[in-house]
Amino acid sequence: MALPRIPRDPEDDHSAAAVRARHALCEEVAGRSLPHLAGAPVPSSSARGKIENLVGYAQVPLGIAGPLLLDTHLGRREFLVPMATTEGAMVASYARGMKLLSAAGSARARVLAHGLTQHPMLVYAGVEAASRARESVPALRAEFERLVASVTSHGRLVAVEPEQVGRRLVLRLVFTTGDALGINMAARAADLVSELVARATGALERYVHGEDVEKRASARALQQGRGRDTVCEARIPRALLHEHLRVTPEALAAIQASYRIGFARLGTHNWLVQAANGLAAVFLACGQDVAYVGESAQGFLELEVDAAGELLACAHLPALLVGTVGGGSAQGTAAECLDLLGVRGDGGADLLAEVLAATVLAGDLSLMASFCTHEFVGAHERLGRNRPGAAP
Amino acid sequence: MALPRIPRDPEDDHSAAAVRARHALCEEVAGRSLPHLAGAPVPSSSARGKIENLVGYAQVPLGIAGPLLLDTHLGRREFLVPMATTEGAMVASYARGMKLLSAAGSARARVLAHGLTQHPMLVYAGVEAASRARESVPALRAEFERLVASVTSHGRLVAVEPEQVGRRLVLRLVFTTGDALGINMAARAADLVSELVARATGALERYVHGEDVEKRASARALQQGRGRDTVCEARIPRALLHEHLRVTPEALAAIQASYRIGFARLGTHNWLVQAANGLAAVFLACGQDVAYVGESAQGFLELEVDAAGELLACAHLPALLVGTVGGGSAQGTAAECLDLLGVRGDGGADLLAEVLAATVLAGDLSLMASFCTHEFVGAHERLGRNRPGAAP
Amino acid sequence: MALPRIPRDPEDDHSAAAVRARHALCEEVAGRSLPHLAGAPVPSSSARGKIENLVGYAQVPLGIAGPLLLDTHLGRREFLVPMATTEGAMVASYARGMKLLSAAGSARARVLAHGLTQHPMLVYAGVEAASRARESVPALRAEFERLVASVTSHGRLVAVEPEQVGRRLVLRLVFTTGDALGINMAARAADLVSELVARATGALERYVHGEDVEKRASARALQQGRGRDTVCEARIPRALLHEHLRVTPEALAAIQASYRIGFARLGTHNWLVQAANGLAAVFLACGQDVAYVGESAQGFLELEVDAAGELLACAHLPALLVGTVGGGSAQGTAAECLDLLGVRGDGGADLLAEVLAATVLAGDLSLMASFCTHEFVGAHERLGRNRPGAAP
Amino acid sequence: MALPRIPRDPEDDHSAAAVRARHALCEEVAGRSLPHLAGAPVPSSSARGKIENLVGYAQVPLGIAGPLLLDTHLGRREFLVPMATTEGAMVASYARGMKLLSAAGSARARVLAHGLTQHPMLVYAGVEAASRARESVPALRAEFERLVASVTSHGRLVAVEPEQVGRRLVLRLVFTTGDALGINMAARAADLVSELVARATGALERYVHGEDVEKRASARALQQGRGRDTVCEARIPRALLHEHLRVTPEALAAIQASYRIGFARLGTHNWLVQAANGLAAVFLACGQDVAYVGESAQGFLELEVDAAGELLACAHLPALLVGTVGGGSAQGTAAECLDLLGVRGDGGADLLAEVLAATVLAGDLSLMASFCTHEFVGAHERLGRNRPGAAP
Repeated sequence: MALPRIPRDPEDDHSAAAVRARHALCEEVAGRSLPHLAGAPVPSSSARGKIENLVGYAQVPLGIAGPLLLDTHLGRREFLVPMATTEGAMVASYARGMKLLSAAGSARARVLAHGLTQHPMLVYAGVEAASRARESVPALRAEFERLVASVTSHGRLVAVEPEQVGRRLVLRLVFTTGDALGINMAARAADLVSELVARATGALERYVHGEDVEKRASARALQQGRGRDTVCEARIPRALLHEHLRVTPEALAAIQASYRIGFARLGTHNWLVQAANGLAAVFLACGQDVAYVGESAQGFLELEVDAAGELLACAHLPALLVGTVGGGSAQGTAAECLDLLGVRGDGGADLLAEVLAATVLAGDLSLMASFCTHEFVGAHERLGRNRPGAAP
Repeated sequence: MALPRIPRDPEDDHSAAAVRARHALCEEVAGRSLPHLAGAPVPSSSARGKIENLVGYAQVPLGIAGPLLLDTHLGRREFLVPMATTEGAMVASYARGMKLLSAAGSARARVLAHGLTQHPMLVYAGVEAASRARESVPALRAEFERLVASVTSHGRLVAVEPEQVGRRLVLRLVFTTGDALGINMAARAADLVSELVARATGALERYVHGEDVEKRASARALQQGRGRDTVCEARIPRALLHEHLRVTPEALAAIQASYRIGFARLGTHNWLVQAANGLAAVFLACGQDVAYVGESAQGFLELEVDAAGELLACAHLPALLVGTVGGGSAQGTAAECLDLLGVRGDGGADLLAEVLAATVLAGDLSLMASFCTHEFVGAHERLGRNRPGAAP
Repeated sequence: MALPRIPRDPEDDHSAAAVRARHALCEEVAGRSLPHLAGAPVPSSSARGKIENLVGYAQVPLGIAGPLLLDTHLGRREFLVPMATTEGAMVASYARGMKLLSAAGSARARVLAHGLTQHPMLVYAGVEAASRARESVPALRAEFERLVASVTSHGRLVAVEPEQVGRRLVLRLVFTTGDALGINMAARAADLVSELVARATGALERYVHGEDVEKRASARALQQGRGRDTVCEARIPRALLHEHLRVTPEALAAIQASYRIGFARLGTHNWLVQAANGLAAVFLACGQDVAYVGESAQGFLELEVDAAGELLACAHLPALLVGTVGGGSAQGTAAECLDLLGVRGDGGADLLAEVLAATVLAGDLSLMASFCTHEFVGAHERLGRNRPGAAP
Repeated sequence: MALPRIPRDPEDDHSAAAVRARHALCEEVAGRSLPHLAGAPVPSSSARGKIENLVGYAQVPLGIAGPLLLDTHLGRREFLVPMATTEGAMVASYARGMKLLSAAGSARARVLAHGLTQHPMLVYAGVEAASRARESVPALRAEFERLVASVTSHGRLVAVEPEQVGRRLVLRLVFTTGDALGINMAARAADLVSELVARATGALERYVHGEDVEKRASARALQQGRGRDTVCEARIPRALLHEHLRVTPEALAAIQASYRIGFARLGTHNWLVQAANGLAAVFLACGQDVAYVGESAQGFLELEVDAAGELLACAHLPALLVGTVGGGSAQGTAAECLDLLGVRGDGGADLLAEVLAATVLAGDLSLMASFCTHEFVGAHERLGRNRPGAAP
């Protein structure tokens, strides 16, 4: 399978015809019709259980980048990546990076670990009571698992770590969640588990999300991971890098070294460059919860020159929170985009995570190169919002 | 002006009739027709300059919460807040909090400061050269302002602070940007200013975003603010709090104290509870860039009992990044939602920021209360994704 | 056993007689002569193996605070705590807090966990090789333990957790170290273990301290602990608090709430008030390595009002790094001070940690109260460096 | 002026004769007798105003490293650096680095900025009152300066920045403090300034150290600096690096790149390697407050290969807190060590800061090289605590 290049119209690429041509390609790749992407309104009944006080649907422009050739846990695959955004020049930037990765043929992505965490907190009369409670947790493990099994058949409790801080006990619970993001299941399980511990140990207070790890970057998630710990790496020959991005491996390693200092001074958990852009755009297209973008965009970018003088590039996202089952994945344009990627439903979530990591790597390579060659502002002028007459 | 309650159908609130009734209310409030929210496809030409490789539009369910009665810098106003999401129970949670704030009548939101920052970095041969460059920056101030004026008539350079780290110089540039988010203007201005300094001081390298402050939470933004530094506060009588949320001020102060410890251990810059949810939903509805959610959701929640035994609640968002001019604000459902809020175009951005801060406060009050009363999981069961037969 | 009050001379407390009287008390409590504290020079041979290029000994003024009545893991004990410092008013501040804790009779300290960590780092050709290495680590566990046993008979390897970041592998090693701090043993063991893994897995590079966790505050140590995870708590009646510190429990809880916000904005891992002061002073007196003060002073202070209106005060130090065997503990004034506390040698390290946690709690209570009553600056004026004629 | 090499006795370097020989050299360099370093007890009266409940003096072994040839703001100077420690091999490690820096002849240190900060906090009834107070601060500036002048003739208030967080106001005050560390002066000034603001604006509460920036590492100090912002840089030829440390510039740059990732995962504000060791040892020798080590040891190490293939090494310490007037600087061994460095009294503090930055750079170069060549553990075995028969 080799996907064709994405059709473009040099005269007017936003014409109805140009859009139709790309839509047709998407339908071919997806192997199904994609009516909602083409404008057919999603019926209101599809939103049942997803939202209250429905009045309609927000519409966000959606483009595609690719083809992206990627070594996944299911073997080599090609993808057209759907991205919804209103930031001009962004899809073009990702597309440029994907073209490079595909030409190199060496991009490889994998999910290293799975583990959705919840951290309920219990409060005791004093340190001594909290210590006793902490010591009693391990013996309850079998009962915890029984409780979790009563809530879900897909998820599993894989670790329980009681952590004491003064008279408080944080129960670090780690779940696998199959192909769902699984937060509702995990919250429900955490509720039951923490209630059991509270009752057994005489806690004064119980907060199901006391150390609330959700939807925020954190030192903990950066170190320990959350959701899908995902990495994408590529080895890129010097000539190819110059041909596509007009930079040397050394220039990329040098800018990276300066960025490291900048990020250290800034005090951030996101050591990537535009990870938030790529993730937000694909999340939005694919029905993922965009409130997770800040947490998911944490991680590391590496740009190193190897012994052979080639670029070794790597994006590592330790807390990627996605699902291809449940949430917003089953209806409308989200389902269509998941089908375009070939990741919808059971068995798709790891593949989606791998595509996301590769997308992030593509975007960061392209953007860092444009910073080196001082083309960044120009590209935004040409493609985006800075056209003459536009607002500041 | 007193907005009516949002119509709901207890039998089937996702029926076409129920949705139509709410849509009609939105049109009345907006004072214009809102065809795209009702399903009319946004034309592809609207996406020109906003995206490349367009294939269509992502559609995301959109509901409304409110009415929200708020003291703004333009006086008391009422709002219906559009929120796009697929997380069941979320809009209901925000609506509950808004009902409480409106009943209290005391919610007051303000933008405390404006300042979009850029941090270009220059690299020198050594510390001595960097120090000399640092010392030469102040004298160039007039020329910087001339350069910025050549790029924009709405934005203004309000501060230039050179910060040295070893042989590198970070130029902290602070801009006001009118009602646009203004990032493209600021990037272009930073490009020109840093190029001037680099030329005048013999920098070896220049990176327009060397200390890249964009689209990520950071210690710097939390302290110094970025974009619109916005706060919303409300004083809520004990009886009202009990009536609406079934909690006492003391219970909220107690959960807040425990959360503080949890967040401190976590290592996060987001000390609010579900700020990312509310911001992502309104950003999506209103054509704001959702990649900024992680940065915008940083800040502080305060829940304190005052001397009279009332609850003093406050959400402070020091780095809210929004615009009502430029970006994705001018077309389709985004323009319709901005019109629903009455904030589209010039003069609207501060008002939008104020509505967002109030929305965040409403959501955090509601959610913290549900944690206290252990209703959180139940609400998700009833309204959301945990229905019997649903995915985990 | 009830220790007498520390003798003081209201006329001239720095007179030779006043100093002699206290020294005599110390000798009585220690049950031995303490000649070096009284001025006898420590012989140069004592410094063998502790320092190179010896020229003599630094002399730092040393005072005592106490008696401190404390519930320890060995039962209730009283302590005179030696503190070396040149910050006027500091020992007095700690003494005031200890008097309160002793009067309350409720201070209780415990070591919750032991674990000295080392994080050697291995670098591989790529992500795939690093992943393979990570997967091979668990099978080597028995060999690791054999290697550690070859280095030490007191220490034990209690956990090995391989953590992957891109093409790098961090080996999180956790040791128990008996009553020594144990860093040299742990470094040697980490060297052997990482060398074995490097050889077995074909690492390109190996850095014995790649993720260098030593002698610095860190998000990781704050969460996971390092060395001795130690806590001290006390319940203090309202009347006693007023009598000793002239504050109410509510005033302390209120200042604490404000400090929390300050520390959150600051971005620190040390949520205590003057922990660094107390630890530095006792470390210096007791031959502990003062380079560990920044790491050891991390942690949490809690000041809460319980249901009975009493103050619940707690200092939690998750990364206290001390030893009563090895290092600087065996000679001169250090050995004398450890004997004064009754913690020298085997079996003493947990007790020393407990005394340190109680000391920190005493100092923070006293200082927070002086901030509430606005006496802080005055006390420094009266006792310390701000005397008329002193330098600024 | 060229200092001789430090005399060493290969047979027994801790013999009385070897110690005497070095002590004699120190007296010659200091140009005065150094009796207390040689063992003469410091009289108890010297401790007046520095400590309460004095019982004697702690004695800590003190060695010297150097000669260190350094370009300072007063021109090229040579130093013998006094270091007090009980960590075997540490002085030797610093001495090795200083030898390299001196041979390169290129080490250059400078204080880039001065600014001791205090952050008193005021609490208001609500956001509106806090905003009004914030707006009223600039007009009080002249009165602030009058108050500060009433407290000190050496210090000066150079900046006042009111920062609002909800209903709280943090007054960021920046002082210059001459050659004193100046914390007592700054605290007293902050007390007066905040009291004036509180009275003028009707604050409900006032905490003189509300955002307590003292004696802890923090994101704020790392970015904004505190005390003396000091940097030392050196350019080291490849051959010299190999001769002294047996490494290449590339090997040091590579280990540094790996350390950066380790530190980022760790979540620390101290991006140097053993800064805490060197600072603690010199602080202790020179009567500086060791409780400031954690704050002072924050900063950045850079190890880069320049275009000519030489090593460009830099240690940047943005928050170095030292003084050569006041505090513990005027008496006993501290005064002797400050005289040995030639930095005691007025005019000495910047020079001391420069020596400290150079010391940190020397130590980090030496240690990083020993990690590259895997000699670290061996050196500790040979020189330090790991001798056969020693504790673990």
